Amino acid sequence: MSSEFKAGALSVNIFGESHGPAIGVVIDGLPAGEELDINRITEFMARRAPKKDGTSTRRSEPDVPEILSGVLDGKIIEGSPLCAVIKNTDQHSVDYKSISHLARPGHSDYTGYVRYNKSNDLSGGGHFSGRLTAPLCFAGAVAEQILNHIGIFTGAHIFKIKDICDTPFDPIKITAEQLEQVKSRYLPLNDVSKDEEMRSLILDCAGNLDSVGGIVEYCAIGLPAGFGDPMFDGMENRISQAVFGVPAVKGIEFGAGFASAGMYGSENNDEFCIEDNEVRTRTNNHGGILGGISSGMPLILRAAIKPTPSISRPQKTVDYTTMTEQELIIKGRHDPCIVPRAVPCIEAAANIALLSYFC
Amino acid sequence: MSSEFKAGALSVNIFGESHGPAIGVVIDGLPAGEELDINRITEFMARRAPKKDGTSTRRSEPDVPEILSGVLDGKIIEGSPLCAVIKNTDQHSVDYKSISHLARPGHSDYTGYVRYNKSNDLSGGGHFSGRLTAPLCFAGAVAEQILNHIGIFTGAHIFKIKDICDTPFDPIKITAEQLEQVKSRYLPLNDVSKDEEMRSLILDCAGNLDSVGGIVEYCAIGLPAGFGDPMFDGMENRISQAVFGVPAVKGIEFGAGFASAGMYGSENNDEFCIEDNEVRTRTNNHGGILGGISSGMPLILRAAIKPTPSISRPQKTVDYTTMTEQELIIKGRHDPCIVPRAVPCIEAAANIALLSYFC
Amino acid sequence: MSSEFKAGALSVNIFGESHGPAIGVVIDGLPAGEELDINRITEFMARRAPKKDGTSTRRSEPDVPEILSGVLDGKIIEGSPLCAVIKNTDQHSVDYKSISHLARPGHSDYTGYVRYNKSNDLSGGGHFSGRLTAPLCFAGAVAEQILNHIGIFTGAHIFKIKDICDTPFDPIKITAEQLEQVKSRYLPLNDVSKDEEMRSLILDCAGNLDSVGGIVEYCAIGLPAGFGDPMFDGMENRISQAVFGVPAVKGIEFGAGFASAGMYGSENNDEFCIEDNEVRTRTNNHGGILGGISSGMPLILRAAIKPTPSISRPQKTVDYTTMTEQELIIKGRHDPCIVPRAVPCIEAAANIALLSYFC
Amino acid sequence: MSSEFKAGALSVNIFGESHGPAIGVVIDGLPAGEELDINRITEFMARRAPKKDGTSTRRSEPDVPEILSGVLDGKIIEGSPLCAVIKNTDQHSVDYKSISHLARPGHSDYTGYVRYNKSNDLSGGGHFSGRLTAPLCFAGAVAEQILNHIGIFTGAHIFKIKDICDTPFDPIKITAEQLEQVKSRYLPLNDVSKDEEMRSLILDCAGNLDSVGGIVEYCAIGLPAGFGDPMFDGMENRISQAVFGVPAVKGIEFGAGFASAGMYGSENNDEFCIEDNEVRTRTNNHGGILGGISSGMPLILRAAIKPTPSISRPQKTVDYTTMTEQELIIKGRHDPCIVPRAVPCIEAAANIALLSYFC
Repeated sequence: MSSEFKAGALSVNIFGESHGPAIGVVIDGLPAGEELDINRITEFMARRAPKKDGTSTRRSEPDVPEILSGVLDGKIIEGSPLCAVIKNTDQHSVDYKSISHLARPGHSDYTGYVRYNKSNDLSGGGHFSGRLTAPLCFAGAVAEQILNHIGIFTGAHIFKIKDICDTPFDPIKITAEQLEQVKSRYLPLNDVSKDEEMRSLILDCAGNLDSVGGIVEYCAIGLPAGFGDPMFDGMENRISQAVFGVPAVKGIEFGAGFASAGMYGSENNDEFCIEDNEVRTRTNNHGGILGGISSGMPLILRAAIKPTPSISRPQKTVDYTTMTEQELIIKGRHDPCIVPRAVPCIEAAANIALLSYFC
Repeated sequence: MSSEFKAGALSVNIFGESHGPAIGVVIDGLPAGEELDINRITEFMARRAPKKDGTSTRRSEPDVPEILSGVLDGKIIEGSPLCAVIKNTDQHSVDYKSISHLARPGHSDYTGYVRYNKSNDLSGGGHFSGRLTAPLCFAGAVAEQILNHIGIFTGAHIFKIKDICDTPFDPIKITAEQLEQVKSRYLPLNDVSKDEEMRSLILDCAGNLDSVGGIVEYCAIGLPAGFGDPMFDGMENRISQAVFGVPAVKGIEFGAGFASAGMYGSENNDEFCIEDNEVRTRTNNHGGILGGISSGMPLILRAAIKPTPSISRPQKTVDYTTMTEQELIIKGRHDPCIVPRAVPCIEAAANIALLSYFC
Repeated sequence: MSSEFKAGALSVNIFGESHGPAIGVVIDGLPAGEELDINRITEFMARRAPKKDGTSTRRSEPDVPEILSGVLDGKIIEGSPLCAVIKNTDQHSVDYKSISHLARPGHSDYTGYVRYNKSNDLSGGGHFSGRLTAPLCFAGAVAEQILNHIGIFTGAHIFKIKDICDTPFDPIKITAEQLEQVKSRYLPLNDVSKDEEMRSLILDCAGNLDSVGGIVEYCAIGLPAGFGDPMFDGMENRISQAVFGVPAVKGIEFGAGFASAGMYGSENNDEFCIEDNEVRTRTNNHGGILGGISSGMPLILRAAIKPTPSISRPQKTVDYTTMTEQELIIKGRHDPCIVPRAVPCIEAAANIALLSYFC
Repeated sequence: MSSEFKAGALSVNIFGESHGPAIGVVIDGLPAGEELDINRITEFMARRAPKKDGTSTRRSEPDVPEILSGVLDGKIIEGSPLCAVIKNTDQHSVDYKSISHLARPGHSDYTGYVRYNKSNDLSGGGHFSGRLTAPLCFAGAVAEQILNHIGIFTGAHIFKIKDICDTPFDPIKITAEQLEQVKSRYLPLNDVSKDEEMRSLILDCAGNLDSVGGIVEYCAIGLPAGFGDPMFDGMENRISQAVFGVPAVKGIEFGAGFASAGMYGSENNDEFCIEDNEVRTRTNNHGGILGGISSGMPLILRAAIKPTPSISRPQKTVDYTTMTEQELIIKGRHDPCIVPRAVPCIEAAANIALLSYFC
């Protein structure tokens, strides 16, 4: 089931199209009795909302989730799936209809057309749309609260946009306060001095009718040692299955990741030590996962986000119904850089994967 | 199920411990009537076998698979799972017993101990062992043959070891012959002139009681457009779930991958064109996957392989039963660089994931 | 996932509680392009609605499903899950609150309380409620239409209520017209002459503050030979997993079922013959399934429905919070016999299981 | 996956064909550290072996399981699947080859042929064979031991063969000793006085070149309240999915089952009471399951076993390759009544389903 993330006793089932009446999510397997703070859910989702300063699409919807089931008196009911629905209110499907037979480069128009026997709902991406990350963020926000209750704190930041780098999370000493702080910032950065530089890069892209990619870094602390498994259902397997569910992700790495490929074993191995009567490591190239199982150290991952494929410049492409080469100019509203809005989405996906170990 | 890869109608279930009587695999859901060439399976598995030139472990087993079910007169029987068993013959479990309470850095000794309530079979890695990639290669070799029958050809090479790079696969023009050629080489390289440099780097590592990591690149050609899905069961999700099943993988990227994070949309977007009346793209930064669905272009991925954690130098670590800091010297046989042997393993995992679309 | 039926590429995910804001279903994996006739769905669901003549509960809701996703211009969009929501409008949760610590005999109050750590939503059954069969019927109605398009026709009738038997379906000659006719009748019977007798039995039960059970028989014709599998995912396994999803089902049998236990092989074996150049059997004790695989003959099953456990007589029970024995008088609205309303529910569950072979 | 039973963290994956080199099973998800008594496993499997007195097939194999993985020093290793293999030694495939295009009535020859595109291994049933219940019994024997360790005791008996009935299990007072006693008897009966009558019925059938069916009753005691779920993954759903995995099962009922269809609610409802400070019911028509969840009362189910379809009389049938009607005389070895041998198989399947709640 492509729209369902299922691991352990947890399932997260996302439905809806960007231009249908509503989108939403059904979450099954949540632990009972947990209190849900709706304000915190709304805040999480607001971090995904477009900015008003020109760095984001001008499509704008309040995205207020309505909970239809699974919650009673503010608490999760065990055994009854939680369904939340978000109405679509700002649909301009006419923007998209005119280009529906031209494959937008970098988009799934053509691949979806072949996959779904020409019956695909092409208006604005349909079920492929980035808009489906709104219910993903709802689920990720629910997951965050439950993880918090068991002492796990999570967060993410813009690791880099093009060549502008934020300070990475400290893989040994990162604190819950620091993770929380990033969430409150206009751009989710550790080093706020990079804010302006990044914003002007994005605005330049918008001005050039272009877009730009970047990397998101995610961290979870407080995750106890001993969760996960070797082989096909290790932590990396399960998390990457969730994170590649966010559109535009083209790569994922854990701990030192691709950098470890250029290291000697004597550099890359993290020596174990005892601190406060706990087993820890002095460095954290393993990113908190050894043999598919959590080590108790901070879990660190990075996801590569490709540049928004929708750009307003003329592009060469094909009409896949007439099999002719054409020029395409994409109209409509789009983000010159989705990296800032991808931060809560990556957080949501990884949170959901982690939550599955506690359901 | 950590030991099972399951997608579509295919399941691949690996069993065994490195020092038990046998290891093996049960493969269910294979298409009926396919002829299996046992020699080609043996050749595939031989590519994973240790080299005799000092660049590999000196553990050496013939690894002849015995097929117990699912094949009759050389053909796959539909509806009856294929079980293959490989006997363990060269077990030196005594090598490992002496260190069983000291956490080897970079290994899953400690995390497995916590995960499995102290009941883990520590002798040589047990079910965590790299030895379990032998049945994985068996399954990957079966997958390759079936993919070949439908016109899909796959291969992998050493993309780099430390800073020594091979020539990448040409993401537009790579041919089945080139993929086949790499398989026949001593080190799986596109550019054989790098062979000696890489080997001497590995031998140096061995001499320094150290190890080194690298990157494996995989390619599949002939994969038709239209396979895969958006969201949680896209091609990237499914393939990465399989590939992280190979021990030591710490990152995966598709197409331009992490490099796309540093690009503008106008650079990263692959323009569509018509060639021989087929829709193709002029560049292949998308790595053959758009929106989780195959585009018909070569599928390209790279996996980061960390340096072998077993190194013979003294390392600081802990005894996790006494909670004391200790020094560890690892004895036994190990590979100074597992990247060459990881090549068929990555191939196998990715082949299996691709096969799942055709079962 | 207890609320999800998943088989092949199909998943049906039911959510909601009887006294929450809404109930609904997410259906994933439906074949694209199928036209849906909303009127026929409404008619199917109406067969589950309470009668107005005293043989049913007096709870009454219009149960109009609202489709939120997965359908465009009346056609199913492939790859995008269909979500339908039904608002709860006639909730009297006060009726149930007063008895919430007394275990109603035959109900899941006590088992749900133990299962869900005292956090269960007890008001009117919560997620356990028979009301959740409304979205089940929605899904079953969608399934019926898709099955019809490929030549499969399905139906069910009251096989018996207590000792009053309807004429069984003819397991060889039953026609689509006969299956359709039963659906249009006040009580779903083959032999309308039994209608009055059954109704007066039910009214007598209501008068005696009692209830009564029965058996539902289901039939599918036009199902081609060759669908299903041996062992754990045979047709019987899959269908029974779905049918036991209908509350109050305590048994299921296929073809001659329990009667075959009293037969000789020479009686029970169905001899094969050729008719109109097709392989058929002269009798149909196997109920259309051999070795877990459809034979091409009508598929026949019967499900035993226990009497409604809610009866208004005083009953002895316990307060499971105080561990004391108590007397209970159930107030509220309930059906003296749920068998007529169970008919479309069994139909829906079996339809969904069959549809999974064609997704 | 038709050959895999998967529920909760448990998976049981059966492989092999009746006339291939070996059959076996891979069991994943077992709790670690459990001691396995191999003698008890062998005894369990011996109960499935053919009798030597003419009431069973004369095919006879020692069926000694060889454990290849998952067990170390007699204990289960967590996280490493247990694989057991049983060699086939007494293959007479020539017996079956001669009839391979004639559909044996009651068998899956024809349905398997259609299902598997003519590539089915027809010799003696292949993967459809009753012989595959040997690894099922292995897995059921492992399950029994683990259930025993947590205080759950299980057993089964011949409820009836044709019209000869054994005394049912007492659904309130049945003890572990009684369950154990049945296992030690020549025919698994509560009332040994029925032994001779049943045996002479079976021998008569054999003499008449005929066969006969029956019913098996299964019971589990000590199962605590609170396991299971409502809807599609209730105890009945999960157990029936496993039990229909035993060939020849055509029906299943829990508690009063089909008899409850003929009852009033006031008869069928089981009143709750307090005994020894535990919630219990005075009667047990619900068979230990309410709302899909265990109640703490003995779990009772019955499975209908059809007569062995292989009978030596001439039967009318078809050649499905030439589409002609033919007469068939089945040679080879077969059981005039499989009910006694089905008893441990039903036990095994139900044990496995129960074990899944404790993995």
